[in-house]
Amino acid sequence: MTSQNVSVPKGMRDFSPEEMLKRNYIFNIIKNVFETFGYMQIETPAMENLTTLSGKYGNEGDKLIFKVLNSGNFMNAIDKDIHNYTYQQLSNLIAEKGLKYDLTVPFARYVVQHRNEIVLPFKRYQIQPVWRADKPQKGRYREFFQCDADIIGSNSLINEFELLQMSNEIFDKLGIKIEIRLNNRKILMGMANLIDNPQLLTDITIAIDKVDKIGIDKAMEDLALKGLNEESVLKIQNIIKLKGNNETKIKQLKRIFVNYTEAIQGIEELEMILKYNEYQSLSCPVILDLSLARGLNYYTGTIIEIKATQVNIGSISGGGRYDNLTGIFGLPDISGVGISFGADRIADVMNELSLFPSYTETSTKIMFVNFGKKEELFCIQKLKQLREHGICCELYPDNVKIKKQMSYANARKIPYVVLAGESEINNTNGKLTVKDMSTGTEKLMTTDEIIKMISDNQNKL
Amino acid sequence: MTSQNVSVPKGMRDFSPEEMLKRNYIFNIIKNVFETFGYMQIETPAMENLTTLSGKYGNEGDKLIFKVLNSGNFMNAIDKDIHNYTYQQLSNLIAEKGLKYDLTVPFARYVVQHRNEIVLPFKRYQIQPVWRADKPQKGRYREFFQCDADIIGSNSLINEFELLQMSNEIFDKLGIKIEIRLNNRKILMGMANLIDNPQLLTDITIAIDKVDKIGIDKAMEDLALKGLNEESVLKIQNIIKLKGNNETKIKQLKRIFVNYTEAIQGIEELEMILKYNEYQSLSCPVILDLSLARGLNYYTGTIIEIKATQVNIGSISGGGRYDNLTGIFGLPDISGVGISFGADRIADVMNELSLFPSYTETSTKIMFVNFGKKEELFCIQKLKQLREHGICCELYPDNVKIKKQMSYANARKIPYVVLAGESEINNTNGKLTVKDMSTGTEKLMTTDEIIKMISDNQNKL
Repeated sequence: MTSQNVSVPKGMRDFSPEEMLKRNYIFNIIKNVFETFGYMQIETPAMENLTTLSGKYGNEGDKLIFKVLNSGNFMNAIDKDIHNYTYQQLSNLIAEKGLKYDLTVPFARYVVQHRNEIVLPFKRYQIQPVWRADKPQKGRYREFFQCDADIIGSNSLINEFELLQMSNEIFDKLGIKIEIRLNNRKILMGMANLIDNPQLLTDITIAIDKVDKIGIDKAMEDLALKGLNEESVLKIQNIIKLKGNNETKIKQLKRIFVNYTEAIQGIEELEMILKYNEYQSLSCPVILDLSLARGLNYYTGTIIEIKATQVNIGSISGGGRYDNLTGIFGLPDISGVGISFGADRIADVMNELSLFPSYTETSTKIMFVNFGKKEELFCIQKLKQLREHGICCELYPDNVKIKKQMSYANARKIPYVVLAGESEINNTNGKLTVKDMSTGTEKLMTTDEIIKMISDNQNKL
Repeated sequence: MTSQNVSVPKGMRDFSPEEMLKRNYIFNIIKNVFETFGYMQIETPAMENLTTLSGKYGNEGDKLIFKVLNSGNFMNAIDKDIHNYTYQQLSNLIAEKGLKYDLTVPFARYVVQHRNEIVLPFKRYQIQPVWRADKPQKGRYREFFQCDADIIGSNSLINEFELLQMSNEIFDKLGIKIEIRLNNRKILMGMANLIDNPQLLTDITIAIDKVDKIGIDKAMEDLALKGLNEESVLKIQNIIKLKGNNETKIKQLKRIFVNYTEAIQGIEELEMILKYNEYQSLSCPVILDLSLARGLNYYTGTIIEIKATQVNIGSISGGGRYDNLTGIFGLPDISGVGISFGADRIADVMNELSLFPSYTETSTKIMFVNFGKKEELFCIQKLKQLREHGICCELYPDNVKIKKQMSYANARKIPYVVLAGESEINNTNGKLTVKDMSTGTEKLMTTDEIIKMISDNQNKL
């Protein structure tokens, strides 16, 4: 085998040290904000039983689930000629498990399985990879991380507002300028009722969902094709196109839906969220967007979408309220609201706008040059002192040419190098030669001075 | 479907919030120490191509690899009647990918695939789950985390010593008392040569490896069964049973192996590691253990094993030096040394000895009782202030009976509860009623005082 043949599977990625520092930078900010709002981390296994996963993502979704072959002689389950089966039927016989496709269904399964241990309301967050056998393309992978926060067992709209607060704070800390868009599924339902076609809710949602991509005219054409007459299409179009600030839009909506109780309830829910925002206003715009649908049929109330305003990349976060998370597993009446952050898209935005701080390039702050066995024994004592102060440092492990050691420090982007040779060891003042790799200047410093310099640099970040 | 049917697959686990806090506590300490020694984190995908995984873990290991069914119509690859295939052959046709079985083989693949980006010496650490279709049993799972640190591209024995330093520091911080045992594969090879049976090295290693479990007499019987004569068995037994401190043992070994260059080299390597330890001595015992083999044929030099001394649980960490990590993928001459920490065993030890600090029981430090809409609006401003100081806090989201809210705080083990009702809102001195949930006492405090109290508590930890 030549070494060229070796690679990760299609659509999957390794994360290099530099990529890990960047990803951890994003995750740490997200985790930290989730936790200050009382959300608690859980993790579920990579694999779930296929009985748990199947039928939850629609036909297209189901096809994208990675299935895991039963261990042992999986063919024992097949008692007829295989030509009597479709490959889907066969896979159900020889594969009982699959890799998780999202974090929502495993969370629903978690809640049902642990219902006797969980105290409601339950605020959980989860940051884990999920797998989809999607066609790999730029920025889209077959293994990717989702970062979800959900609170279940509470109908209060303060939960919605806290999700917005969390998003605002996360993107503030990351340095990404965002706008938050809100809608409510009950208003979408109201539209379907308004045109006397409640059964077309899904089609209307799908059409509205495409407004962003294909424009309002084309989306309305799609609706006409579904059998809506011109008047109905016009009515929907007029709602989506409502002008003005949130207050104005709400006034108009209340007039339009005056006879539609459910829609009025949706409008009032939005109003309440906006009222919280008056008292504790977010630093980002919160916009009522009646064309927001997010194509997800399981949302039953608030719909949330977050966009980065400085790059054209679609939504970087979204969520909403659902009435019946665990009904599919036989546990009814558990409602909740949640939000999901797309780590890859966020990283893309951060890279495009150069928002990662420079310390995400390296962890080691200082390297000791290796001058031989005697010097090594001297250095390991110094290194220990530095590490006790939390400083990431290393000794070049081999006594090779200094040039080679220096080019290693350079390639690793290590900012400082210590040269502790014979003369430094014999130096009674305990000073070491420290080279600043960015300027090339050298300076004699005590260990305490080195510790102070690096700690000060870290505190500045 | 009744909700009872819902569960994780056999041998796999959910991690509850409390379990996550404990696991993160362990991982954070491990990560932090790895990083202060200059080790850099990488991650590899859950899945690898089966060409990468197969044949690397022996026959038994290969059977335990979870295989992932090819997506789409996987049966297209089968052109004959399936009865012409064994199930192993079939699985190779319908599954091209598998879940990673350990972190070493994916790391070797990583090094080969990214050889042009990697600067040697390369210090990497990796903390990720691996999967094995093992028989599930107590303390043994089909999905579990490995924490590996390896340095490749350096033959220096300072690397071995740094791994010992790292282990010492990690277990010190976790509060687990350990002893480190060392051996060297070259001495094991020396034993095989000493009895003129170099081809029996593996059998000798396996027998020696069992000494701990089945006793030295039974292990020596096994060797006799492999065809070793009494004299040979006695020779090996005498070496394994060598008495005295490390210095004494080394002296005796040097005499025994005086004519065996390779063994002498192994002895000198151990001597060098012990010399580093004289200069910068670890707080735990480092013991030369000639019965240590760790059954892994790929070790070529130092062998390391770490045991917790207060519980009888086997090794909680181990590693060693290997000469040829990436040879299997066509890239020769990459040697290295590494160590692996078993997160589950470490957690078991910590639980058994009650070593987890109390703050691993909850993240939220303070909860605000919900008295209704007006109070909510007042509270969200206070919460914001607390969160700006990094304090994890939450508002009970619904205006339900105080008793219910209190029992939630109790169940969540939240240490403080704020009661901010009508009177507190109208209070001109801005003081809130704070209830200490452990003592039941109530106190009027300003937001600043609350922040100070909780920050002080956190700093004490």
